Amino acid sequence: MKPGRIRYGMTAECRETREIMKVELICVGTELLLGSIVNTNAAYLSEKCAGLGFSCYFQTVVGDNEERLTQVLEMALGRADIVILSGGLGPTEDDLTKETAAKVCGKPLQLHEPSREAIRKYFADRGMEPTDNNWKQAMLPEGCIVLENHNGTAPGVIMETERGSVILLPGPPNELRPMFEESVAPYLAGLTSQVICSRTVKICGVGESRAETMVKDLIDVQDNPTIATYAKTGEVHIRVTANAEDKKAAQKLIKPVVKELKNRFGSHIYSTEEETTLEKAVADLAIANGLTITCAESCTGGLLSARLINVPGISEVYKSGVITYSNKAKRKLLGVKKSTLQKHGAVSERTAEEMAKGAASISKADVAVAITGIAGPDGGTEDKPVGLVYIACCVKGRTTVKKHLFSGSRDKVRDSAVSAALGLMRSCILEYYSKVTFGKEES
Amino acid sequence: MKPGRIRYGMTAECRETREIMKVELICVGTELLLGSIVNTNAAYLSEKCAGLGFSCYFQTVVGDNEERLTQVLEMALGRADIVILSGGLGPTEDDLTKETAAKVCGKPLQLHEPSREAIRKYFADRGMEPTDNNWKQAMLPEGCIVLENHNGTAPGVIMETERGSVILLPGPPNELRPMFEESVAPYLAGLTSQVICSRTVKICGVGESRAETMVKDLIDVQDNPTIATYAKTGEVHIRVTANAEDKKAAQKLIKPVVKELKNRFGSHIYSTEEETTLEKAVADLAIANGLTITCAESCTGGLLSARLINVPGISEVYKSGVITYSNKAKRKLLGVKKSTLQKHGAVSERTAEEMAKGAASISKADVAVAITGIAGPDGGTEDKPVGLVYIACCVKGRTTVKKHLFSGSRDKVRDSAVSAALGLMRSCILEYYSKVTFGKEES
Repeated sequence: MKPGRIRYGMTAECRETREIMKVELICVGTELLLGSIVNTNAAYLSEKCAGLGFSCYFQTVVGDNEERLTQVLEMALGRADIVILSGGLGPTEDDLTKETAAKVCGKPLQLHEPSREAIRKYFADRGMEPTDNNWKQAMLPEGCIVLENHNGTAPGVIMETERGSVILLPGPPNELRPMFEESVAPYLAGLTSQVICSRTVKICGVGESRAETMVKDLIDVQDNPTIATYAKTGEVHIRVTANAEDKKAAQKLIKPVVKELKNRFGSHIYSTEEETTLEKAVADLAIANGLTITCAESCTGGLLSARLINVPGISEVYKSGVITYSNKAKRKLLGVKKSTLQKHGAVSERTAEEMAKGAASISKADVAVAITGIAGPDGGTEDKPVGLVYIACCVKGRTTVKKHLFSGSRDKVRDSAVSAALGLMRSCILEYYSKVTFGKEES
Repeated sequence: MKPGRIRYGMTAECRETREIMKVELICVGTELLLGSIVNTNAAYLSEKCAGLGFSCYFQTVVGDNEERLTQVLEMALGRADIVILSGGLGPTEDDLTKETAAKVCGKPLQLHEPSREAIRKYFADRGMEPTDNNWKQAMLPEGCIVLENHNGTAPGVIMETERGSVILLPGPPNELRPMFEESVAPYLAGLTSQVICSRTVKICGVGESRAETMVKDLIDVQDNPTIATYAKTGEVHIRVTANAEDKKAAQKLIKPVVKELKNRFGSHIYSTEEETTLEKAVADLAIANGLTITCAESCTGGLLSARLINVPGISEVYKSGVITYSNKAKRKLLGVKKSTLQKHGAVSERTAEEMAKGAASISKADVAVAITGIAGPDGGTEDKPVGLVYIACCVKGRTTVKKHLFSGSRDKVRDSAVSAALGLMRSCILEYYSKVTFGKEES
């Protein structure tokens, strides 16, 4: 074990050496240094490595420059067990990550026939001819582990050296992510005896500060698993994370904490599954109850429908929706009364209600949700400020209207309104089936 | 001048020393190392610094740890003129960026009365009481320049030392960005005699590789300004960037290159303004010609409307839209013929055409655009694969239909379809007014 590794859990009773291995990230690319693109690879790789039980103490961004990349890689090898580099594996002369890393590791580049063949096939499948540059991508460090790229021409590389493992991944996220899942995650999992598991409890309809207050006592006394709250637009996620020697032991630590959170937040929890979004939870609820849904949107201009339609399989329950931006459209497409618009205005409880009822009646959908509000930056008054949004939901004739005052930019107000509308759809469907009553805390 | 700085332009004729100063970024925060948040501050600060004429060779992310932060800061001070740190200025014990940086710079912390008063006022305005921790934020390094924070309680700090300037900024983007604009940008501008200006030529309807081929000769011979192409979904941006001693001189270098690009790409250029998006260009064109617009969307489920409605002032021309996901909705809301759906299917040239015509006729809009396609991941067949999208645009009775085959995920296909629809709206409006003919290159 190199001195940089941290040991822990080394009590007299614990005979097995457990160690947390350190991974360090180096993202290569001038476009990152110029701020032309945001470094989503670093967030992705960090999150995945943390999930596999690795610690990451440093991330570095450096340009396509041999001298500076060498400097950064040498330093990373001095303080981490595994160094993951992303970017700079392309076919052009600027791309020098592989050449530089191979030199630092003392591995000469050799032609790798299967990669050459894969590149030939990649171009042939697309009816294209590779350029001379492309063959450069088949030159790989001697003795390396080759990671197949199913989404591009640059293979990934793992070099195992006495100073640690060096992993090279392509920069485009649609190549890097599948390669990480398929090849790097299993490789890393084989290096460590320690796993970190986490489960996320996803909550809607409870504000961030209230959610924090509700779990503060748990956070204060818990060490393993740890509990952390994350505020999302219109949602709060609580992540419960445990270290253990295997997945089963970690899940055993997590289970009672998730149970306690379910006791405290009750029906406000819409999912504890990683891949379930709020819109998926709503869609699943509608599908399970055989309810068709429709949306009538004003200030959100189609965003709510677009989020719902993002759920595969939604076509079973979502048939149509309307965007009624003008007063005339609200009258014509939804049957909102002229007198309502004149007396209460387009942004009012009454208009929202008539929009939802009209949408339900015209589309014959079981659940109709309507949004009308002032997204800004202009259009606000003292009585009706920017951020004022009314959301109505009609479930089989029973209509609920909620008033919100959201803060932030036009985009933020619209995103908040969409999340609130999804939350309202969910609570109205549950209430209709008398499964729960919202508006009070669950015990 | 320290040895790390790069000199250039030092010919016998050039008496003025021009130098590019180096800035280095250090983003502090465990949540970045865990991948819980994406490092948008790094992209923002890099882009701003590049725009001010500074070079950035390294960005580092490190956690809230005194030893590791000291190590990173010492290294940055050894290779850059200015080090910008973001994050870790909060009131809790975990936040130690200021304490660590002050120690590295040899500046003791002192109570800064105006900051103490600002913190008192910040809480009083919100009817809240500061906690004991909050006063920590008024302890600032001796002799520093204090940067006011109008959006939070942590003041920013500039420490000028013999080894370079160290700038501390709060981590939340809504505090960091205004502070950078108000205080840091003017400070940095005063340090350098060099400016970098750029102009972006935004193109739609021309593929990335064709655009690259069309400007390759320019890229090869240009040094100042430089020319770089960036592929966006459905668009290509060409950025022309010049160094000069002042803004005027830089713009003078840029102008003839932009003119040449206009010659080559003609009407495919929709804007050369930084803040103009494709949807804004389409909205502006509709407003300028007094044309109302409507959208009928199937596979994009409201995304096109949502993008259009994101343009402030759109309510002048956009009144309503529909999402017709099911065949029944296409018939009922748009009048698509049953026989068309039966004979050609929902994803066909004919259905797209009838959707656009129906939307125009029912909404009475001057411009109606319709999208129907297969976004995937399921639903594709050999004849009609995932990614097949038909887009129709009807301008005052004249309808054009385009067939596309997009690649990538469900999200990618939908985004590509929305961009293509905006491009089609633009070209159809221009063609209607016989301003240009698309489909051939402009000269």
